[in-house]
Amino acid sequence: MPQLRLSEMEYERHRNAIFQRLQAQDVRGLVLFNPNNIRYCCRWGFIPTERPIAYVLTPSSSALLVPRLEEEHAGEFVIADSVRSYPEYPGDRHPMEFLKDILVEFGLEHARIGVDADGYGNIYGYRGPRVSELLPDATILNINNDIEYLEMINSPEELALIRESARWGNLAHVYLQEFCKVGVSETEISMRASYEASQTMIRTLGAEYRPVGAGSMPAHAGFRGQIGKDSALPHAMTSNVKLKAGDVLVTGAGADVWGYGSELERAMIMGEPSPEQERYFNLMLGAQTLALDAIKPGIKCSDVDRAVHAFFDEHGLNANWRHHTGHAKSTLIHEAPFLDTGDDRTIEVGMVFTVEPGIYVPGFAGFRHSDTVAVTETGIEFITYYPRDLESLTIPV
Amino acid sequence: MPQLRLSEMEYERHRNAIFQRLQAQDVRGLVLFNPNNIRYCCRWGFIPTERPIAYVLTPSSSALLVPRLEEEHAGEFVIADSVRSYPEYPGDRHPMEFLKDILVEFGLEHARIGVDADGYGNIYGYRGPRVSELLPDATILNINNDIEYLEMINSPEELALIRESARWGNLAHVYLQEFCKVGVSETEISMRASYEASQTMIRTLGAEYRPVGAGSMPAHAGFRGQIGKDSALPHAMTSNVKLKAGDVLVTGAGADVWGYGSELERAMIMGEPSPEQERYFNLMLGAQTLALDAIKPGIKCSDVDRAVHAFFDEHGLNANWRHHTGHAKSTLIHEAPFLDTGDDRTIEVGMVFTVEPGIYVPGFAGFRHSDTVAVTETGIEFITYYPRDLESLTIPV
Repeated sequence: MPQLRLSEMEYERHRNAIFQRLQAQDVRGLVLFNPNNIRYCCRWGFIPTERPIAYVLTPSSSALLVPRLEEEHAGEFVIADSVRSYPEYPGDRHPMEFLKDILVEFGLEHARIGVDADGYGNIYGYRGPRVSELLPDATILNINNDIEYLEMINSPEELALIRESARWGNLAHVYLQEFCKVGVSETEISMRASYEASQTMIRTLGAEYRPVGAGSMPAHAGFRGQIGKDSALPHAMTSNVKLKAGDVLVTGAGADVWGYGSELERAMIMGEPSPEQERYFNLMLGAQTLALDAIKPGIKCSDVDRAVHAFFDEHGLNANWRHHTGHAKSTLIHEAPFLDTGDDRTIEVGMVFTVEPGIYVPGFAGFRHSDTVAVTETGIEFITYYPRDLESLTIPV
Repeated sequence: MPQLRLSEMEYERHRNAIFQRLQAQDVRGLVLFNPNNIRYCCRWGFIPTERPIAYVLTPSSSALLVPRLEEEHAGEFVIADSVRSYPEYPGDRHPMEFLKDILVEFGLEHARIGVDADGYGNIYGYRGPRVSELLPDATILNINNDIEYLEMINSPEELALIRESARWGNLAHVYLQEFCKVGVSETEISMRASYEASQTMIRTLGAEYRPVGAGSMPAHAGFRGQIGKDSALPHAMTSNVKLKAGDVLVTGAGADVWGYGSELERAMIMGEPSPEQERYFNLMLGAQTLALDAIKPGIKCSDVDRAVHAFFDEHGLNANWRHHTGHAKSTLIHEAPFLDTGDDRTIEVGMVFTVEPGIYVPGFAGFRHSDTVAVTETGIEFITYYPRDLESLTIPV
């Protein structure tokens, strides 16, 4: 049976790891607001709104504070000693007063408390006091870097979910490539590919499969506007353009498995590539191969990006450079650390990165592959496995 | 020709309104980080990442700061005197240093500066200094409430986009209802409905239509897990369950038009309603009708919610209450102000609200309609227009 969720032991491991990491700082309690961090510790995923949700953890107890409308939903999924609720935001008593009640009950009024943010953000019109204002006698420490570090290192269970995601992203991309035809619009192609792959995914995985997100498409593939000349815009937005012969396409595909994901992107060409298209494609492939070869535990993230910059220098491509080599990837779209000259963090076993140096020629085209790889003892494991060569990515017109 | 975007004059109106509103506070410049606020002032929509984007506005000049990878993309859409770029985040020089350069160039080093946040948030692993740290001699004022207030009041052009959104959300919902059959899964029904409606939408609107979001489905409809007993969970997440006879379904539909949206939700029943289902459905309809009738300019948001609470009291429904009556709605999922007992802001002409009191019976079912309405001189205009009565929402099985 495919592994489609994390075990309870895995969540226990997550929770223990935080206190272990914070041992030297004498932290007696944690307050987490970030939905991703909350899910990491207590399994419950939810739709963030103007209503704050907070998770409180001490070495001996835990509580989740939710608005009344989430009480039954949270109770069904969460791993916590108790679920507490407040009626509503803004409501007649501010939700943060209910949080204060829990912190006082847990004896944290004068303690050192680790938080991932000093209060809930200004999401959808929310306003409210900071934790440091609720408990003026406590010492509030931002432990965001610590929890983020733990989230960077993926366990075998987490890697299994990321691999499962890549399988369905791959299928969505196969459909995407099959559906590419001159005169058909971006939106039509990406909707059909996402639909077909998602259908197959849910049929194959059965009732055990449960995405954690709120979207209706478990698997997806598309172009996000990177078509023809606009392929030179690395973060273009979805347009409604129809494919033409000679277009360069830059794609993106992935799938949601228990909140974990993967990233697969390819440069493809509609019809026989021109010599100039072929040249840039091969340079891009060279830069990506070089970056993939460079990644291994013990070196710095910046080392990988520096190797790519040297390649751009050597081939006179600096005018075509637009972004760093890649980013970590597990439960969010982008995550730290970054394969970037400014990021000197050490690459470790269990980190998962996208590798995606791109070459962009304004008014002509952009060229980018993105592969997701996991760092192993000796180098990398490819999580994504779609063909990278020009022939496989040339679409007959 | 349908109106599918805002005019340049509309953006000019947005920009002027802010300085007018801040006149008494002697604010000489603005720095905005929130993607929604940036788009509101300068038209450019983008995908937020770890790379901060900031918009700087003074009464005489404006500049947009973007990472290098967004320079051409921003240049194509933005209304600003200049687009500046930094190479990358984290990069060799922090992006906020580039922001400081602009602020110094604009003569704001010692000025009163309005910000929507004192720095870029911790998005996707971003870390960086606050504006108040960059310019220690400036006075930093949080003007989030002011810009949020302006965004609450929709102009005729903005209302036209919200109405256009409702048209396609309606079509998606028609398909959703048509595709509901015993034994078919939630995911399959919502994907098909979203796909068919989006196809029709892009064909009908043609090349002039351009969503501003990054998604591939311009129109969507689904259930987000609110099926059968789980319809009692107001914010359930997508599951993979198949419809059964006797299920209550709670739906949601909408569409993206230039970043503006609408919200349409319906309680539907698979097969002849039981007496208990019918009773709760009619109570819900009564509460919603009462709230719709209550909304008019000049009263407080809390007044509407209080009327709904009185209805719940009167009918002994307090155990089935889970959330406030509604929220404002234009460019985000939820927006302030809230139809909530704790929100005493005044309802004004041009505000757009969802009206969605719900009745939830744990282990049995949930009942909620959501309609989007615009506040007029005399009451409300229905933006959504899907049938609300039980007969229309009963699905033959």
